[in-house]
Amino acid sequence: MTIKRQHNRRRWKKLTGPIVLIGGSGDSADLRYASGYSAVDPAIFVQHGKRKWLVVPVLERGRACREVHSDVKVLTSFDLELNKQDRRRLSKWIEAVVRKERQRRVMVSAWCPAGIVERLRKDGLKVDVSREPLFPGRAIKNAAEIAAIQEAQGAAVHAYKSAVRFLKRTKIAKNGMLKIRGRAVTSKDVRLVIDRALLEHDCIGSGTIVACGSQGADPHERGSGPLKANQPIVLDIFPQHRKTGYWGDLSRTVVRGRAGGKVQKMFRAVRAAHAAALRDVRDGVPGNKVYDTACKVLAHDGFETRMAGGRPEGFIHSLGHGVGLDIHEGPAVGPTNDLLRSGNVITIEPGLYYRKTGGMRIEDTVVVTKTGYRLLQKASVQLEI
Amino acid sequence: MTIKRQHNRRRWKKLTGPIVLIGGSGDSADLRYASGYSAVDPAIFVQHGKRKWLVVPVLERGRACREVHSDVKVLTSFDLELNKQDRRRLSKWIEAVVRKERQRRVMVSAWCPAGIVERLRKDGLKVDVSREPLFPGRAIKNAAEIAAIQEAQGAAVHAYKSAVRFLKRTKIAKNGMLKIRGRAVTSKDVRLVIDRALLEHDCIGSGTIVACGSQGADPHERGSGPLKANQPIVLDIFPQHRKTGYWGDLSRTVVRGRAGGKVQKMFRAVRAAHAAALRDVRDGVPGNKVYDTACKVLAHDGFETRMAGGRPEGFIHSLGHGVGLDIHEGPAVGPTNDLLRSGNVITIEPGLYYRKTGGMRIEDTVVVTKTGYRLLQKASVQLEI
Repeated sequence: MTIKRQHNRRRWKKLTGPIVLIGGSGDSADLRYASGYSAVDPAIFVQHGKRKWLVVPVLERGRACREVHSDVKVLTSFDLELNKQDRRRLSKWIEAVVRKERQRRVMVSAWCPAGIVERLRKDGLKVDVSREPLFPGRAIKNAAEIAAIQEAQGAAVHAYKSAVRFLKRTKIAKNGMLKIRGRAVTSKDVRLVIDRALLEHDCIGSGTIVACGSQGADPHERGSGPLKANQPIVLDIFPQHRKTGYWGDLSRTVVRGRAGGKVQKMFRAVRAAHAAALRDVRDGVPGNKVYDTACKVLAHDGFETRMAGGRPEGFIHSLGHGVGLDIHEGPAVGPTNDLLRSGNVITIEPGLYYRKTGGMRIEDTVVVTKTGYRLLQKASVQLEI
Repeated sequence: MTIKRQHNRRRWKKLTGPIVLIGGSGDSADLRYASGYSAVDPAIFVQHGKRKWLVVPVLERGRACREVHSDVKVLTSFDLELNKQDRRRLSKWIEAVVRKERQRRVMVSAWCPAGIVERLRKDGLKVDVSREPLFPGRAIKNAAEIAAIQEAQGAAVHAYKSAVRFLKRTKIAKNGMLKIRGRAVTSKDVRLVIDRALLEHDCIGSGTIVACGSQGADPHERGSGPLKANQPIVLDIFPQHRKTGYWGDLSRTVVRGRAGGKVQKMFRAVRAAHAAALRDVRDGVPGNKVYDTACKVLAHDGFETRMAGGRPEGFIHSLGHGVGLDIHEGPAVGPTNDLLRSGNVITIEPGLYYRKTGGMRIEDTVVVTKTGYRLLQKASVQLEI
């Protein structure tokens, strides 16, 4: 909590004019964080010192008034005394609020649409495009935010258990296919089990991954077609809670039947890397130190990352990322030196990827503390089921 | 189809340099349209004349190669001969591709992140920010796109029918609450029925609306809490198909029990406006003509849009919007004069909104033809159920 305030103070000192955010685009999570409002269509947020405005389309007024933080004033384009044509232009909304504040200079995020920046400049405002996050405090979660992520993570664990129960009910046919009542079981079937379980917890699983065998070699391949016995199945479950907007993130890799020697070895290495990385996590540690630890454990177990036939194989992604109102946000836990801080919520997800064998990933979401970390939800780690 | 080619030809003539898109942001639907690739993390697309490149993070290479159109070349930052630091910068990816093409000028969309534009300019590229859509052809759907939207719309109709069946099973308690097995039925329960039905059709319902009584007075209020008999319940179902990325959009308003006099009148007026507007739809008609028709029918039936206590009531949104890889895209069917064209897929969704009574909306998704329109999926229109 302390750090959040420090971050903000530093930012406000440098600030030369109002901060402007555009919702319904790359700024939407910042806008929701700053205002409480979840943008469907474009909306703008302006913060000048302690004064905060949200301008929304007229049809959103009622919803916006219910959703915003108590210190945010909701306006519609009708409140801004704009002519009919200007009422349709986001840049005019911004200009109207900023001029009301007698300012001529604003700061926008790097994700602000370039078209808006050009129009504001044409209309005579000075626009600074920030290279840093406008709300660095977002990376430090307060108790309510941690509770919200924990709730989404609880849905993920519930869905993972449902998937394991479902897979255990499958029969292994002579040709190695998984079947239920004589019908081949597909990635889609398991995804349906997972996403239905998420819905029961008021969460959306928009990109659930169920990738079997060689499909799992691509970390973001969602998976399709029949599932096979004795092959690794990567389950990556990242629900967003409908009400709070916060995400959870959980991955496990299971084999229905018997895992081959290489897959067993991959499992042991990834599990060891996961445990070793978690031992490094605490306030003040740079992300790349934790990442290096995971790399070393994997290499020690015989899994060096290298190029094979023009493409990399082994541990081909970073170790983790922040989780909050975006599924991927700061701090990065990879080759860069972002410092981990108490209150960061991050994933730790070492993985191994080989074109023929497939993927192996174990991922948990934890909150960083002064002395280590706290696991947000516990889920069993098992290979063969 | 003819028009699509015309649009493109016009665009290419004006083009002064490669087109650049940034996926994982406001440009994602354009990037998916142009390349076939669905961005999870940031990716860039460059088109110079007929040559097309997609640059993705290294872990996305396999998935990208499977997803892209046959004329798109997939690269990763490792293929661009960048140093370790530059490999992490999207602007350097763009610069590397553009310089390979011996170009010094590029065109980006109005939604391109301003941070990228600033970096490109700093690195010596001339950047034009387009005020017009870079792919106006997106508004004219080909047969495969229409089929994809029709499939998503089929899921919406299926989900709507499930919701009606579920609501019909409820009992009306003495206090006017809807109950099943003695338990109050909530918006969340009906949303679960709808979203599960969508999942069965491989579609995601990320923002399904089930808004009863006064909640329905805000067109984008998702609804919460117990449902009541004899009050309008707005059901707005807009699924995105997981595989194709195309959306469908369907709204109906139902009353479990008996509708009061005003709600019945609102229903008849909205149904008449919906029918009258559809009669106007055909190639070459401006959107505002169709919108005006709907307004006139509503006003004729006693529902003028006006300010009441500082906020507008009546028909407070536009009549419709294009549907495709974005849920809201061109052409607009509202007060602006966008021309409707054969191959546009649009919604027609007149509605009425009153703080006390609630909302009433009837929405279908249609494809515009030379002589009129074709309804993509048929769903019954009924008030009392």
